[in-house]
Amino acid sequence: MKSSVPKVLQSVCGREMVALVADVLCDAGFDDLIAVVPPSSPAIANVVGSRATLVEQIEPLGTAHAFSKAQALLGNHQGDILVINGDVPLITRETIRAMIQRHESSHAYVTLLTCDGLPAEGMGRIIRDKDGNVMAIVEAADLDTLTASVSEGNAGVYCFKSPWLWSALSELPPSASGEIYLTDMVAEAALQGHMVDAMPLEDSGEALGVNDGIQLARAREVVQRRINNKWLLHGVNVMEPAFIDITVQLEPDAIIYPNTFLRGQTVIGKGCQIGPGSIIVDSVLAENCRVVQSVIEEAVLEEGVEVGPYSHVRPESHIETDVHIGNFAEVKNSRLGKGTKMGHFSYVGDAQVGKDVNIGAGVVTCNFDGTDKYETIIEEGVFIGSDSLLVAPLRIGAGAITGAGSVVTKDVPAGAKVVGVPARIINK
Amino acid sequence: MKSSVPKVLQSVCGREMVALVADVLCDAGFDDLIAVVPPSSPAIANVVGSRATLVEQIEPLGTAHAFSKAQALLGNHQGDILVINGDVPLITRETIRAMIQRHESSHAYVTLLTCDGLPAEGMGRIIRDKDGNVMAIVEAADLDTLTASVSEGNAGVYCFKSPWLWSALSELPPSASGEIYLTDMVAEAALQGHMVDAMPLEDSGEALGVNDGIQLARAREVVQRRINNKWLLHGVNVMEPAFIDITVQLEPDAIIYPNTFLRGQTVIGKGCQIGPGSIIVDSVLAENCRVVQSVIEEAVLEEGVEVGPYSHVRPESHIETDVHIGNFAEVKNSRLGKGTKMGHFSYVGDAQVGKDVNIGAGVVTCNFDGTDKYETIIEEGVFIGSDSLLVAPLRIGAGAITGAGSVVTKDVPAGAKVVGVPARIINK
Amino acid sequence: MKSSVPKVLQSVCGREMVALVADVLCDAGFDDLIAVVPPSSPAIANVVGSRATLVEQIEPLGTAHAFSKAQALLGNHQGDILVINGDVPLITRETIRAMIQRHESSHAYVTLLTCDGLPAEGMGRIIRDKDGNVMAIVEAADLDTLTASVSEGNAGVYCFKSPWLWSALSELPPSASGEIYLTDMVAEAALQGHMVDAMPLEDSGEALGVNDGIQLARAREVVQRRINNKWLLHGVNVMEPAFIDITVQLEPDAIIYPNTFLRGQTVIGKGCQIGPGSIIVDSVLAENCRVVQSVIEEAVLEEGVEVGPYSHVRPESHIETDVHIGNFAEVKNSRLGKGTKMGHFSYVGDAQVGKDVNIGAGVVTCNFDGTDKYETIIEEGVFIGSDSLLVAPLRIGAGAITGAGSVVTKDVPAGAKVVGVPARIINK
Repeated sequence: MKSSVPKVLQSVCGREMVALVADVLCDAGFDDLIAVVPPSSPAIANVVGSRATLVEQIEPLGTAHAFSKAQALLGNHQGDILVINGDVPLITRETIRAMIQRHESSHAYVTLLTCDGLPAEGMGRIIRDKDGNVMAIVEAADLDTLTASVSEGNAGVYCFKSPWLWSALSELPPSASGEIYLTDMVAEAALQGHMVDAMPLEDSGEALGVNDGIQLARAREVVQRRINNKWLLHGVNVMEPAFIDITVQLEPDAIIYPNTFLRGQTVIGKGCQIGPGSIIVDSVLAENCRVVQSVIEEAVLEEGVEVGPYSHVRPESHIETDVHIGNFAEVKNSRLGKGTKMGHFSYVGDAQVGKDVNIGAGVVTCNFDGTDKYETIIEEGVFIGSDSLLVAPLRIGAGAITGAGSVVTKDVPAGAKVVGVPARIINK
Repeated sequence: MKSSVPKVLQSVCGREMVALVADVLCDAGFDDLIAVVPPSSPAIANVVGSRATLVEQIEPLGTAHAFSKAQALLGNHQGDILVINGDVPLITRETIRAMIQRHESSHAYVTLLTCDGLPAEGMGRIIRDKDGNVMAIVEAADLDTLTASVSEGNAGVYCFKSPWLWSALSELPPSASGEIYLTDMVAEAALQGHMVDAMPLEDSGEALGVNDGIQLARAREVVQRRINNKWLLHGVNVMEPAFIDITVQLEPDAIIYPNTFLRGQTVIGKGCQIGPGSIIVDSVLAENCRVVQSVIEEAVLEEGVEVGPYSHVRPESHIETDVHIGNFAEVKNSRLGKGTKMGHFSYVGDAQVGKDVNIGAGVVTCNFDGTDKYETIIEEGVFIGSDSLLVAPLRIGAGAITGAGSVVTKDVPAGAKVVGVPARIINK
Repeated sequence: MKSSVPKVLQSVCGREMVALVADVLCDAGFDDLIAVVPPSSPAIANVVGSRATLVEQIEPLGTAHAFSKAQALLGNHQGDILVINGDVPLITRETIRAMIQRHESSHAYVTLLTCDGLPAEGMGRIIRDKDGNVMAIVEAADLDTLTASVSEGNAGVYCFKSPWLWSALSELPPSASGEIYLTDMVAEAALQGHMVDAMPLEDSGEALGVNDGIQLARAREVVQRRINNKWLLHGVNVMEPAFIDITVQLEPDAIIYPNTFLRGQTVIGKGCQIGPGSIIVDSVLAENCRVVQSVIEEAVLEEGVEVGPYSHVRPESHIETDVHIGNFAEVKNSRLGKGTKMGHFSYVGDAQVGKDVNIGAGVVTCNFDGTDKYETIIEEGVFIGSDSLLVAPLRIGAGAITGAGSVVTKDVPAGAKVVGVPARIINK
């Protein structure tokens, strides 16, 4: 991959590639996963560790060698065992289920998943005898002119009968490269006269293995297509290009305008209009919100909130019903009360803002003195005049007014009007 | 569609689906349209009511039943009658014209539009006898294994001979579901020994019916492709993805950079450079304007105006020749005079600004006192210093200067310089 | 093209079409290019003049006539001569090299490049005799029913034997339109009994000639695909749509999020995260920078700089290591020292800012007095309070503090704190 990020940790629509594979296995009903991982790879362990028992392959001596590391955990297991590569993110739950069923209802010692019609470059090929029996897999590195012309490729998913599996595994010869290939289990089974079954993929695209950046891009495209189609059929108006993580939840009649990014644990309610050009990360939006050309991060938006264009709601913000946030507005770690309006360029940080407050253009909560951050409290119905500076810590009482250009350094009583630099009460 | 929006009102490149169908009929020369609509659907009536006589189908008893509601209006009509579903937005004017011509020059009692080669899922299928004569249409819901294997689909457009049509209509049997299908007119004609003609679509893609979100997305894609191709061949440099409504007008040598949205009644002049990432709604831009990463709504931009990145021109704004609006600038319900510069973050609302005015960074027209909005008048050649607050109602005379940070609460005479909070004249 | 821009100057991924053709010839090893150009076309001369000798074709009398203008420069040349149209931007270096090699190792007097399987509309067609010998090219304008059905098209690249070439050229008859076609050299060679060889393109898409806006869009798409694939295979995480000029340099492990524009002489270092929605023009970014939804023009960003969303770094800016530029910030012709923070809406222009400076929300360097621009110097460790106005020329000494809302009109000594309008020192 020419990347410092391990291949199986490359992100595909919000999930690491190996997490997608684990998702599919869990969805298919497996609850006893073992992941063979390279040594000292806490990032991989972090991703799959909660769902799989990890075993390390210290030396990279091939796929069969890797698999043999699982024997201590699996050696007493009497059922069948499914083995899957970590770099085939497009295999579906339905395929895994069909493969297991087929394996269990046959006498095969090995069941393979194969594909036909893909550009098979980079794939191992399936070698059959003249009666069509699968005899071997030739790895991509070992292809000669004849085997390279075979169009049937190995998708990298296998069901094995155990305990036969373990004795066969121990007898595999090393390849020319010195590595021991798991794919040689097929020739071993054939040699011993055991049945090898090959299940062809209906959609050969599922077999895509990711070995370079172009294939990674292709995998992302396919997964995004699946995600978007799912929501389109669910009554969500997804207009593409739309970049929706697999972890996002959408409700019917939401409109996702083009170039919108919905990331992480985001939930978008009914009738929301998001985008174009918005980025929503780990946020929950209730019904009928509108977010145009804006960024929302780790925030909650209640019903009917409008944001944008070009505004930025930062983490730990809670925006109540019917708040209007216009253009060039920034909110950080704050709560804005119901019906509050913040229509223009301005910065509200570390603030608790009540209902029906009007925040003028150019307003700044001066929450930082170079060392510490302080809180601003604005009670309901306050009118913060344009370009007012609210030097925190500060409390502005209900219904108070700050004049345009005020520098408010002291608490303002409810109902008072303050103006000037520094601001003084001019009536009450 | 799993949506609360009626299917035929779903928007496709700025037009409701049924409006696109009506557009095609009007373009093909029809001036006497009748739309059969569900009861109590003012939204549909609103969209097609200006061009079609509306009749309501109170109970949803099938397509033939729907059509029969038009009989009171059409029963005396002696010519042929064309019937089209409201959910086939891709049928072209050329196809409709060819179909009418074919019907009129044949002896057919029914002429159908058919398609072949589409994934026919969801479509009714054309049943022919062994000599190739069309005998019936089987609706998608009633397909059996045999009929489902037919690849010729019904596009949902029909020409009927009248008055035969009305007698036949009254004799149609209900289907298994109880609904009466208009498609059964084909079997009825065949039964009576009348000729049924089927015109195959040259581009079967025109037959796309919209029955789910994926098909709606596909329809949008096709219509957008047609719109963009039209402008590309007209000398407009459209760089995709470009989201151009069917209602927009563009002139040659305009460059539309990617991710640009041109909406509604927008007109873009020669040599304009729009985007990337701009949204222009219901606005008219004269020649050689540049709008980068910005939003323009219901505004007029004269020649050579520059906007962006990240600015917002809001409704009722008129921007004169050669105005420069830079970044994070907001203009609302205002006129900016020729050559005026507003380069930085700032807000101008409810203002009349003369020629060659310089508006500094952070300037705000304080147009709202919590209750009412007031006007600001800035005459030509004024220099508004950075962060000046202009508390409306206010008039600043020609050639006046406001110092940085002024809070201007009173009118400023022509040629005066004011500074301070509140601002006072320091020379004249 | 219906454009006022000459076709060969239309831009394809950052290069004019004819410059792409010249690039390919230079890459293929040619160092002696002659370009036949229309008269009085300084723009074309400007693009190719540094690499090719220019000769003008005063009257547009056809491609052979155009080519004959090069005879004065080439008449004594004894080797083979390659002629290529300026509107075939997709031909590759490999194709040119293969074609030269094939021509040189054959006895052909003419070697043509041909394609099959393209929609041949607009292309000249290859006429062969019944033994398959190439006999002529019929130009698109002169096709009849028979010749229009030929699927083998002329890609517009030729190798000629010289000096035969010149005598043959002088004998070409004018076409029906009066123009003399270079393509008639093929019939001339055949007539004289000389061998004509046709090299078919492996990828017929390379033959795309650009004659309308749709073909131009298609050419851009193909070139962008090639550029993006190159970087994907180089370990760059390009997420499409990505608009990367052919002139841009990227390093592995950079992530280019969708809708990003990398233009001109831009260089992006390892581990950078650019986009979504960013525009980077002629800028150099060191490792591990992040630029979200922002515009960077003619600037240098050192390691670990963060920008965005919605900020604008304008020309002549140099941003040192670990600077944080947040939202709605504008920097112009300034240097920001290591670790400086400018998190919110603000404008820094014509300024030298030291290390570890904090620039508050709403800060403006008032660098323009209506006539001239002045410089602001902010030394290291300064804290610029929110909404401070820095009226240039101005120097703020190391460790100084400006209070919120200060209007700073005079130099501030190191370590001083100033507040007010105008700002005064309150401690030191």
